[in-house]
Amino acid sequence: MAEAADVFEASQLTTDPFDDDKLREECGVFGVWGGTQASAMVALGLHALQHRGQEAAGILSFDGEEFHVHRAMGHVAGNFDRTDVIDALPGEAAIGHNRYSTTGDTALRNVQPLYADLAAGGFAVAHNGNLSNAMTLKAELIQRGSIFQSTSDTEVIIHLVATSSFRTLLDRFIDALKQVEGAYSLICLTKEGIIACRDPLGIRPLVLGKLGEAWILASETVALDIVGASFIRSIEPGELVVINDDGIRSLKPFAPVKSRPCIFEQVYFSRPDSFSDGLSVYQVRKSIGAELAAEAPVVADMVVPVPDSGTPAAIGYAQAAGIPFELGIIRSHYVGRTFIQPGDQIRHLGVKLKHNANRAMIQGKKLVLIDDSVVRGTTSVKIVQMLRDAGAAEVHLRIASPPTTNSCFYGVDTPERSKLLAAQMDLEAMRNYIGCDSLAFISIDGLYRALGETARIANAPQFCDACFTGDYPTRLTDHEAAEAPTQLGLLAERRG
Amino acid sequence: MAEAADVFEASQLTTDPFDDDKLREECGVFGVWGGTQASAMVALGLHALQHRGQEAAGILSFDGEEFHVHRAMGHVAGNFDRTDVIDALPGEAAIGHNRYSTTGDTALRNVQPLYADLAAGGFAVAHNGNLSNAMTLKAELIQRGSIFQSTSDTEVIIHLVATSSFRTLLDRFIDALKQVEGAYSLICLTKEGIIACRDPLGIRPLVLGKLGEAWILASETVALDIVGASFIRSIEPGELVVINDDGIRSLKPFAPVKSRPCIFEQVYFSRPDSFSDGLSVYQVRKSIGAELAAEAPVVADMVVPVPDSGTPAAIGYAQAAGIPFELGIIRSHYVGRTFIQPGDQIRHLGVKLKHNANRAMIQGKKLVLIDDSVVRGTTSVKIVQMLRDAGAAEVHLRIASPPTTNSCFYGVDTPERSKLLAAQMDLEAMRNYIGCDSLAFISIDGLYRALGETARIANAPQFCDACFTGDYPTRLTDHEAAEAPTQLGLLAERRG
Amino acid sequence: MAEAADVFEASQLTTDPFDDDKLREECGVFGVWGGTQASAMVALGLHALQHRGQEAAGILSFDGEEFHVHRAMGHVAGNFDRTDVIDALPGEAAIGHNRYSTTGDTALRNVQPLYADLAAGGFAVAHNGNLSNAMTLKAELIQRGSIFQSTSDTEVIIHLVATSSFRTLLDRFIDALKQVEGAYSLICLTKEGIIACRDPLGIRPLVLGKLGEAWILASETVALDIVGASFIRSIEPGELVVINDDGIRSLKPFAPVKSRPCIFEQVYFSRPDSFSDGLSVYQVRKSIGAELAAEAPVVADMVVPVPDSGTPAAIGYAQAAGIPFELGIIRSHYVGRTFIQPGDQIRHLGVKLKHNANRAMIQGKKLVLIDDSVVRGTTSVKIVQMLRDAGAAEVHLRIASPPTTNSCFYGVDTPERSKLLAAQMDLEAMRNYIGCDSLAFISIDGLYRALGETARIANAPQFCDACFTGDYPTRLTDHEAAEAPTQLGLLAERRG
Amino acid sequence: MAEAADVFEASQLTTDPFDDDKLREECGVFGVWGGTQASAMVALGLHALQHRGQEAAGILSFDGEEFHVHRAMGHVAGNFDRTDVIDALPGEAAIGHNRYSTTGDTALRNVQPLYADLAAGGFAVAHNGNLSNAMTLKAELIQRGSIFQSTSDTEVIIHLVATSSFRTLLDRFIDALKQVEGAYSLICLTKEGIIACRDPLGIRPLVLGKLGEAWILASETVALDIVGASFIRSIEPGELVVINDDGIRSLKPFAPVKSRPCIFEQVYFSRPDSFSDGLSVYQVRKSIGAELAAEAPVVADMVVPVPDSGTPAAIGYAQAAGIPFELGIIRSHYVGRTFIQPGDQIRHLGVKLKHNANRAMIQGKKLVLIDDSVVRGTTSVKIVQMLRDAGAAEVHLRIASPPTTNSCFYGVDTPERSKLLAAQMDLEAMRNYIGCDSLAFISIDGLYRALGETARIANAPQFCDACFTGDYPTRLTDHEAAEAPTQLGLLAERRG
Repeated sequence: MAEAADVFEASQLTTDPFDDDKLREECGVFGVWGGTQASAMVALGLHALQHRGQEAAGILSFDGEEFHVHRAMGHVAGNFDRTDVIDALPGEAAIGHNRYSTTGDTALRNVQPLYADLAAGGFAVAHNGNLSNAMTLKAELIQRGSIFQSTSDTEVIIHLVATSSFRTLLDRFIDALKQVEGAYSLICLTKEGIIACRDPLGIRPLVLGKLGEAWILASETVALDIVGASFIRSIEPGELVVINDDGIRSLKPFAPVKSRPCIFEQVYFSRPDSFSDGLSVYQVRKSIGAELAAEAPVVADMVVPVPDSGTPAAIGYAQAAGIPFELGIIRSHYVGRTFIQPGDQIRHLGVKLKHNANRAMIQGKKLVLIDDSVVRGTTSVKIVQMLRDAGAAEVHLRIASPPTTNSCFYGVDTPERSKLLAAQMDLEAMRNYIGCDSLAFISIDGLYRALGETARIANAPQFCDACFTGDYPTRLTDHEAAEAPTQLGLLAERRG
Repeated sequence: MAEAADVFEASQLTTDPFDDDKLREECGVFGVWGGTQASAMVALGLHALQHRGQEAAGILSFDGEEFHVHRAMGHVAGNFDRTDVIDALPGEAAIGHNRYSTTGDTALRNVQPLYADLAAGGFAVAHNGNLSNAMTLKAELIQRGSIFQSTSDTEVIIHLVATSSFRTLLDRFIDALKQVEGAYSLICLTKEGIIACRDPLGIRPLVLGKLGEAWILASETVALDIVGASFIRSIEPGELVVINDDGIRSLKPFAPVKSRPCIFEQVYFSRPDSFSDGLSVYQVRKSIGAELAAEAPVVADMVVPVPDSGTPAAIGYAQAAGIPFELGIIRSHYVGRTFIQPGDQIRHLGVKLKHNANRAMIQGKKLVLIDDSVVRGTTSVKIVQMLRDAGAAEVHLRIASPPTTNSCFYGVDTPERSKLLAAQMDLEAMRNYIGCDSLAFISIDGLYRALGETARIANAPQFCDACFTGDYPTRLTDHEAAEAPTQLGLLAERRG
Repeated sequence: MAEAADVFEASQLTTDPFDDDKLREECGVFGVWGGTQASAMVALGLHALQHRGQEAAGILSFDGEEFHVHRAMGHVAGNFDRTDVIDALPGEAAIGHNRYSTTGDTALRNVQPLYADLAAGGFAVAHNGNLSNAMTLKAELIQRGSIFQSTSDTEVIIHLVATSSFRTLLDRFIDALKQVEGAYSLICLTKEGIIACRDPLGIRPLVLGKLGEAWILASETVALDIVGASFIRSIEPGELVVINDDGIRSLKPFAPVKSRPCIFEQVYFSRPDSFSDGLSVYQVRKSIGAELAAEAPVVADMVVPVPDSGTPAAIGYAQAAGIPFELGIIRSHYVGRTFIQPGDQIRHLGVKLKHNANRAMIQGKKLVLIDDSVVRGTTSVKIVQMLRDAGAAEVHLRIASPPTTNSCFYGVDTPERSKLLAAQMDLEAMRNYIGCDSLAFISIDGLYRALGETARIANAPQFCDACFTGDYPTRLTDHEAAEAPTQLGLLAERRG
Repeated sequence: MAEAADVFEASQLTTDPFDDDKLREECGVFGVWGGTQASAMVALGLHALQHRGQEAAGILSFDGEEFHVHRAMGHVAGNFDRTDVIDALPGEAAIGHNRYSTTGDTALRNVQPLYADLAAGGFAVAHNGNLSNAMTLKAELIQRGSIFQSTSDTEVIIHLVATSSFRTLLDRFIDALKQVEGAYSLICLTKEGIIACRDPLGIRPLVLGKLGEAWILASETVALDIVGASFIRSIEPGELVVINDDGIRSLKPFAPVKSRPCIFEQVYFSRPDSFSDGLSVYQVRKSIGAELAAEAPVVADMVVPVPDSGTPAAIGYAQAAGIPFELGIIRSHYVGRTFIQPGDQIRHLGVKLKHNANRAMIQGKKLVLIDDSVVRGTTSVKIVQMLRDAGAAEVHLRIASPPTTNSCFYGVDTPERSKLLAAQMDLEAMRNYIGCDSLAFISIDGLYRALGETARIANAPQFCDACFTGDYPTRLTDHEAAEAPTQLGLLAERRG
């Protein structure tokens, strides 16, 4: 094991020093039907969901006659806060999408919402999630003469709708969904209304709100808050809603199964001021901190969060343990990824662009350091060293999630398993690699307790926790095919 | 008074809704002598000082033969994190400047460092502060045939150097400084070395650091941290240092006076992880919170900061009062200033782009809300209302500085007096305008106590606190001339 | 008629004053197989064909493994003269396209070459011409589930290939072409080679060249000249060639018909230094001038061309008539379309941006003014007036083509018939409208004589001259459908 | 000599293949007083003068209160044809400048009009020409404390005005001009009016026009034509005019000398449709062609111009010799300088981007080829070879100017002497180098005859012909200093 660890360490240290070492949620979606300046509302909603996908965004509107679309690389602000852009997206219905994607201009064709002129009329889709059989379906569609324009798995849905033998758009859409497997929260815009759907397991979130006469759909409740809309309810797992001027209609087109929403939404993805399937994310995180304080107590001078994602758990830990909460690390408000490193003297430059030790507070002190998760461990190494360089006497690292040991196939950008620290090392090896005085992760049952459950039900887990357990709730058709001896040769880019 | 308040309120509500209602520090400066890739180091230093000036930046380097400069509107990241830009700034000596300035391309000529080819050789200046007799000096220089290229007060210094009757650059520079009044921390680059100086009162900060063989000058210690440099000492008020390959030489060219550094650096401008004239800014702010808890106690469920500037004082208040500290407001990490407001239904959109109420925590709760200062009061109105809309039972606002009643003439962008809430209203009128249940500011003596003083010495104050007291430490020649019946007709833009 | 003329004149004078009043060729195509740096060669070829389409360009290359593409709005120079762009288009095979298209960023998806991943492999198309049944075919394809990404008629060909029931790409392509009607010179790039084809009537040109081992296809011979290639022969009407490493193979997949190449290529579209179907374009235009001198002689001091398109005919006229040829109008080399007109005093600003009278030459002189064609007549009005303002005694306008009375449906941007001067007025009304002393167009038989024919064969014309005669050589399915009472509702943009 | 020629040839062949091998006029100026939308008029005037300076342009306006300026790299069209730019330049007075300058963003500070706030008020200058003692004066001004912002020689004039001991702006300006030597046509804008001046020798042109109430100054008459203004007269050598609302006032501040306008304006710089000091440039060039036909006759099939600069002389030659004039070379309308050369097979790519042989005309023919001048000879080599490659039987090159043997110090960009073909070789060596069958230049007296003189008066030449004769009409102070053993160390960029 020691040898493996050495190899691991060596290769990890060459990793981009500016990396945050976080899992990346890959999409946020937002839709409006029946609101004046719907696209301006979508822009605000996407801005509130910016944390779910920061590298591209798109808005598509319908003005009663025509569809209009604008897609751009980069943040919502800077692209969709301009009057000329919003004015070119008229109408009382609009949908939008934030994307975490690869850079480069060729990628623009992958930026959602995707749109197609079908025989049944215009059809636009915004998708959060990932289909685990997209590659297989795509190969079949191309054989039949379909021409793909993007490498997005979402386009598979559109071609399934276009070539479906059913007549109405709604029936074609349901027909398409019955062929796909994986995670999807979808908002579709047609001339007849919005069609939205959450996959049978409810892996990705989707909520319903209302502002005056306007119906709103969004990935998180914070996007309702920013436009002043009321939260009505979550869309249920396996539920499909049709929204138009006649109101909202709910369908359940799938065979019922026990839901398993993504547990990482609670741990990291969702904003702390969101409610996720009924729970306050902030309070869940504080409860995780309190569970951690009970499971892994320390005698220390202060509790210090890795800001900002570790802060709610740190407050929870501090309150439960009766240890002062202090900002021992200050986070910069300014982003900067690729500064040139002038000479070898500058240690840990990458982490310092974002974080700086609050030397006055921590010098000579014993710290409980709280972070939300450890993925590759690269940032943890640097933060612990930065605290020691600034004079910390002891650093006890507590992680507000169980060890991340498995890849996600449902719309989260996870490194391959060989890059996951916890998939390669045991606890002591990790402690040694990170360089902290002690290390503890919350237990899987502790995490479920923080979520209000008594414990994880092993044969029917209440959440999708595959990244911690390897227990995937769906088939992984493409993954199995890729691991099989024959090559498919056609690769749908896995995003969503 | 009621009538005045009405008028005030009406005019205030038309203010840009995206305004932060904060005073703006107007500059950060950074310099290196004797470091490999000096300009890359300056880029990092300016990134750490980004909060001191966010609208333009410039770096000027000297490679032993020639000077090179790049100036740009916008942040350091995005302009100075590019290899091509840094490679075009070669040499082991470089200085840089962050500026809070007006936008528009014509403003580029005002972006520092300023540079001139003098008979005595190339001369570059980066300036934090503001000269209070710049307009008067400029009018005299123009009469003598000097041609100004910028509207910056800093250019006055260069022309005074160019036309000085002394021989050496150093003597000319000292001759120039003896003619100016006001606030200045200056870093100048010449072929013979760096010349840096802090004005006799030490109004603006300037610190000295070392990294290997390289000498570093910076506005704040956080800029030393990012490059891994050691903090040596603050440059003293009235001190001038010459740094070259022979080392550092200290001069005191001015008649000695009692120093009066800017007190607002401690309250708001400096980063909490900086040390300002020997004090930890974070600990000062916690002490202010503790003083506030003693001066203005409340029975409440939780202490909530207006993030992030109110957070250290809120932690201090919470610890002193024994009330839980909670993130009752979540701050967005994404900037967005000018989103179109879709319809009238959206209340307080401006503040919501940056802040959102953490509804789950505050519903039905009594809050102590901590902010660092109140300038025009416009944001306070909206934040209090946002908390009430989210269900807060009581909101008690506590301000970590005394009422801001006077303009600054030393390099801070202050609204004119008629726009300062505390210059127009008494405490109860302010409370009523802001809409909180109770309102308290820390007393001026409480603030001095938090800074380690027994109290403010009225006839010889230890700090420049003119914004709270109107007690200006220098003459205000230009201001007096502007208020006098005759017009000067020539206006130096007050920046620095 | 007088009344109609008045109405016509009034509406015409509101036309964009910067308009050139020329018909616009809508595309140029170029392809290389087997050449080092094929994309650099395509860039040169497209630059030489820039006059055929000036608003967008694209190049697509194949490196033996993968396809690469870059498309851009604007000229070839400025987009494809950059090393980084060409380096990103590697391989020994490449095709390119110049387009005259509408502006705006959404139009980028219409810029060719178009590309699709088909089950049979990658397939790219560059198309000069226009399909006259594209809308009808598109509607059928959408019914069957095809999803269109552009509004270009060319995409119809790709979907016909994708959904063809034949097996090989070549058979599928021939199957597709048998379904389309109209004009097309096509260059397609596949992994197995280039497939190129000229429609059965040969309406648009296509020539074959060779440079070392490389085969080259181009719209005109000038594009062979610029890369130093030898002209081999024209691709014949109805001929399809397959070019790969085994050499060139010629097929004739269509039933043979008498060819009818576009006569306007000779009159205006092609460059004078090109050979078009065996004839030197420069010499044809000189012959037209000589025919005009015989058909419509004048007693005059000099022959003046409207530069540069009228110059060869003017030289031919001058030599035939024995009247000196002079540059009575000087053309600016600099383009400028939208200058603001400062006040009403400036007459004929639009025409002056491009042309200026050579006052010294023409003052008091009798001029024969030669232009290639009259479309709406707007520029002719201004040029004649400009010459009179500069002192010309008489202006006799001679036009090197017959009156343009009908729209083109084969890839040329023609105004609707109601905007064509010659469709609305008789000769005297036109002369009066333009304001010249006399006006003559070459006769249709004169034009055919200049092309080496004895006369036009009325029941089997040797050229497509529909713009002069209304005698269209194909069905116009879409046009007939559009004029029929029922609406198709789906519009393919007519370009090529 | 052969050896020298070999060396020369070798070094010349490495020259940039896209080079035109022409001398470059370095500036055009234009000014308006008393016209509505003066800046729009200046934009048009500069567009008509674009050939005099193509790499940057600037316009500065005065609205009765304030000055406004916009400067940009690139052509007038694209920068000054936008409504927002012109609207930001309000007022009834404006001046503008075209510049042939070095590229790169730092050069923007050199783009004229230059402007300074002087004690006597705002002062702007646009300058065509070059001062031959600028470096010497600049060194003195810097010694006295003047700070230069550009490397333009024109800034010297502004500092001389700023530091003059005279009182009024006009007296200061005259004081400044008395200190400078060289060539200058200046248009200055002040609050009190336009001040324009032509140097005592009248080296550069300047004409006066009128449009309604507006006075106009321009480098050439074509700029009057474009705005529809009447040509009033040329500004006389040594004349200074003051134009304001009271009209125009003429002064003669210099001691009278015999004028010597630049002869190359007639040969190449000025547009053929301009009148230069009373002569039609087109007719002068035709006369040069006629003189050449008499001095150097050939038995040939046709006269072919190198378009477009050789065209008028070719028409003159053809008419005088009774040989047909033909377009044997076709010029592309599209600019493209830096295309990548794909492989070594492509000969003469550089010249082909701009010119193509009209093969059909010249094959087997004897040509008289007419060009305006030979500078380095590089383009001539390629054009002759291109004609031979296209089948020309004989190529007899005739040049419409005498051999260019000396550099210009008056505002024309000339290669150093060692790069001038005629400074290195005799006639036969040049013929051999260029590869033509015969070569002749017009004689210096033939050139003077074409200009209406009997012959050149050797001891008092009627024109500045230093580039042909080395007879410079002024001292060359900077040049002499640069050739002297001591270095000045301060370099004014020679432009104008």
